[in-house]
Amino acid sequence: MAVYTDVTAEDLIRFLADYDLGELLAYKGIAEGVENSNFLVHTARGNFILTLYEKRVAAGDLPFFLALMEHLASRGITCPQPVKNKKDGVLGKIAGRPAAIVTFLDGMWIRRPSASNCAAVGEALAKLHLAGASFAKKRTNALSVGSWRALFEQAKDRGDAVKPGLCASIEKELAKLEKAWPRALPQGVIHADLFPDNVFFLGEKLSGLIDFYFACTDTLAYDVAICLNAWCFESDHSYNVTKGRALLKSYVKSRALDAAEKESLPLLARGAALRFLLTRLVDWLAVPDGALVRPKDPLEYFRKLRFHQSVKSVGDYGID
Amino acid sequence: MAVYTDVTAEDLIRFLADYDLGELLAYKGIAEGVENSNFLVHTARGNFILTLYEKRVAAGDLPFFLALMEHLASRGITCPQPVKNKKDGVLGKIAGRPAAIVTFLDGMWIRRPSASNCAAVGEALAKLHLAGASFAKKRTNALSVGSWRALFEQAKDRGDAVKPGLCASIEKELAKLEKAWPRALPQGVIHADLFPDNVFFLGEKLSGLIDFYFACTDTLAYDVAICLNAWCFESDHSYNVTKGRALLKSYVKSRALDAAEKESLPLLARGAALRFLLTRLVDWLAVPDGALVRPKDPLEYFRKLRFHQSVKSVGDYGID
Repeated sequence: MAVYTDVTAEDLIRFLADYDLGELLAYKGIAEGVENSNFLVHTARGNFILTLYEKRVAAGDLPFFLALMEHLASRGITCPQPVKNKKDGVLGKIAGRPAAIVTFLDGMWIRRPSASNCAAVGEALAKLHLAGASFAKKRTNALSVGSWRALFEQAKDRGDAVKPGLCASIEKELAKLEKAWPRALPQGVIHADLFPDNVFFLGEKLSGLIDFYFACTDTLAYDVAICLNAWCFESDHSYNVTKGRALLKSYVKSRALDAAEKESLPLLARGAALRFLLTRLVDWLAVPDGALVRPKDPLEYFRKLRFHQSVKSVGDYGID
Repeated sequence: MAVYTDVTAEDLIRFLADYDLGELLAYKGIAEGVENSNFLVHTARGNFILTLYEKRVAAGDLPFFLALMEHLASRGITCPQPVKNKKDGVLGKIAGRPAAIVTFLDGMWIRRPSASNCAAVGEALAKLHLAGASFAKKRTNALSVGSWRALFEQAKDRGDAVKPGLCASIEKELAKLEKAWPRALPQGVIHADLFPDNVFFLGEKLSGLIDFYFACTDTLAYDVAICLNAWCFESDHSYNVTKGRALLKSYVKSRALDAAEKESLPLLARGAALRFLLTRLVDWLAVPDGALVRPKDPLEYFRKLRFHQSVKSVGDYGID
């Protein structure tokens, strides 16, 4: 839930004067996104989303994110499309923050995804990877294997308070992944955060992908591994092989995984689990005692990591 | 900012099956309202607001609020209009909460109201009072003079931590108001919470009133006194007589204040200041140390109370 910055009607009217969106009729702060402030903006031209980029998003990365959304939208990926202002730009400033207006996407995110939803996500992810191949800009993944040790350093003094022995387990896994991390697999644009709340459906049909603010240039199969973690576990943290198979089979119909990618999938899935375990752990430990807001449970990803450590080969995920 | 209850797409589709609003296309939790959870709901028929009534609103009061909005809307007051379901009802249930769908009102609230905005509010308030005269249902004001001592009891042990001597000042004021509170003035439906964030404007034109969940049957001039507190002070807590005059002159053009109402206005304004001082103080003291969310400053209303205590007659507010 996120509205970090208040926007006055006067600010917004001034901001919109640079756009051809007609009269401002209403706007509401919306409880969506964690890093930025988002507003639904209703003008004579319809509904739009205004995003104010808060300090956790580096201003230098914004042209990458916005250009990527334009690139993908122009290649048939349904995602929010940045609206151009009268100077043909997509980035403005409001209330002291960099800000952009994007199109409003219909659809709802699914709290309890089915195998059919997982299949739809697999297909959308593959198409995103294919459409991204012609995207010229690059952005390093700031949350890949090279940054995990620094995250661990922030958490290791107090991490065992969350679960005794947690830090020794993380330390061991981290050493293993740093050594074995595959670096020669096919690279490209990855979404890097394609969780259920970033995928909209209208009925059974996937209607759009949102929140490209972790997108970067990295190993494509790592994005698949993130989705396996995000979509194919039950609420008791057990892996649902039917969902995993649906996601993977659907992905490979549009973009085949080569032998090296398949062989690396268990390791990539461990890495993805460790990445979310670490960021959640840091967020968890950063919250003061007595706070009203509790961040997401880091141990969910510890349990997922345990599963991936037990995996013998890609077959355990549901495909050969 | 308020979304206390998560609503799944499945829940909402089931709920909307009882309405003639067409296909659900999107919904977003919105950061508006303090007592309830609110969602913008986009269907084939347009934008609507879904409100889930959380436990701070008594379920038994909901028929009063919803019938009042219908009554006012049918008499030309622009306010959210409850949407009837297929059984001709306006109240349903979603995620275990009583819930209603109301029409979406265009307009924005004004962070820094001008005298012209104050004049518009004065007129709207008078028209609301006139339109309310034919409303049959009654609801006691749960936050009027009779309940202030109980609020004070919740705060008096720790209130001086907010400001030394605060509780002795409140005690004295409370005793005075309990004795002198005027009980024979014209009564009717009052909004009771007509702060700037509950009044929408499109340009200079007032486009609607929202949030009727404190509305009740009480002294009409007390509602005027609440608006003087809410609209006519500057951010340094000084009274702006130009704004007060604009609000009052505009009010009396539609509904005259009689001599007794005018004479009582300073006392009613003290009461209104004390009511918001007390509820804010209780909320302030209820927040645990280290919490991320800070409620509104109670001392803003202590300073306003000080002003009203210095007032000699209604003339000090800007009208004779």
